[in-house]
Amino acid sequence: MKRFAYLLFAVVALAEVVVYVAHASGRSDGEADPVFGITIPPGYRDWKLISVAHEEGNLNDLRALLGNDVAIKAYREGKLPFPDGTMIARLAWSYVPSEENDKVFGRAQSFVPGPATNVQFMVKDSKKYAATGGWGFAQFNDSKPAGEALLKTCFSCHEPVKARDFVFTRYAP
Amino acid sequence: MKRFAYLLFAVVALAEVVVYVAHASGRSDGEADPVFGITIPPGYRDWKLISVAHEEGNLNDLRALLGNDVAIKAYREGKLPFPDGTMIARLAWSYVPSEENDKVFGRAQSFVPGPATNVQFMVKDSKKYAATGGWGFAQFNDSKPAGEALLKTCFSCHEPVKARDFVFTRYAP
Repeated sequence: MKRFAYLLFAVVALAEVVVYVAHASGRSDGEADPVFGITIPPGYRDWKLISVAHEEGNLNDLRALLGNDVAIKAYREGKLPFPDGTMIARLAWSYVPSEENDKVFGRAQSFVPGPATNVQFMVKDSKKYAATGGWGFAQFNDSKPAGEALLKTCFSCHEPVKARDFVFTRYAP
Repeated sequence: MKRFAYLLFAVVALAEVVVYVAHASGRSDGEADPVFGITIPPGYRDWKLISVAHEEGNLNDLRALLGNDVAIKAYREGKLPFPDGTMIARLAWSYVPSEENDKVFGRAQSFVPGPATNVQFMVKDSKKYAATGGWGFAQFNDSKPAGEALLKTCFSCHEPVKARDFVFTRYAP
């Protein structure tokens, strides 16, 4: 019985280490972005919700902002700047009217996600990304990283929200 | 050392039991809805994202659909009908233009969540809710359950999507 308890304990501990290492390494088989070296963080689709938005104009999308546990904790505690290890994902889909929903409502009013446009990430590492406010930026179109030219525009666009540690999105309760 | 290992093991096991019971009981101090007896599921704000939407008209909101683990698994596997234990949360916030974002873009284009409007839940229990397609419905405005009159309209509105087990929202990849 003692041996069994030890064995069980060892197996649980080992499993936790494996899971931790798999997450912490952020390993992914995908291509890294050419400026900040960021790959698609494994499991990001399971992260918790920060907020949602609709962008009109050229973007014309519906979007969801998800955060890893470090991000969510910082948001909920109102902690700024975001600590190293924060990762924020911005998912976006084209903005499409829902015919089937509108039929039920009896009028055009419902807009839902069409095909995904691209996924963006912000990764906080105050040393590695010191030149860009401590943030690395990445964008993937169908798993393919965006090029250098686009990525070099990220930080300048985020600079106006320096007071919120360069992050536009507020937490939606 | 042996004693310490046992103690640590016992503490971890006990903590897991406490967490499990707290979740499994679905206990909540809030008021139950008057038709289906549903209370606000603890921890629903931490559930994973199903999709997002924008409703115009009287609703005029931005919304996020979150699902518990049973819901997410069923969605990702394309499993219909949803199994008992499925819980879906619909969060909604008023649809508000973002002045600070628009300033950066140089034009009006960004819409973000304003104050929360209400939270709705669908809970699958094929026996308990047999009369309404196996689904219980609830709506809370600032933690206060909606009245009988409103809740009795839920199922008839969802009936047109019977082929998708009465659930409007599709999973956004």
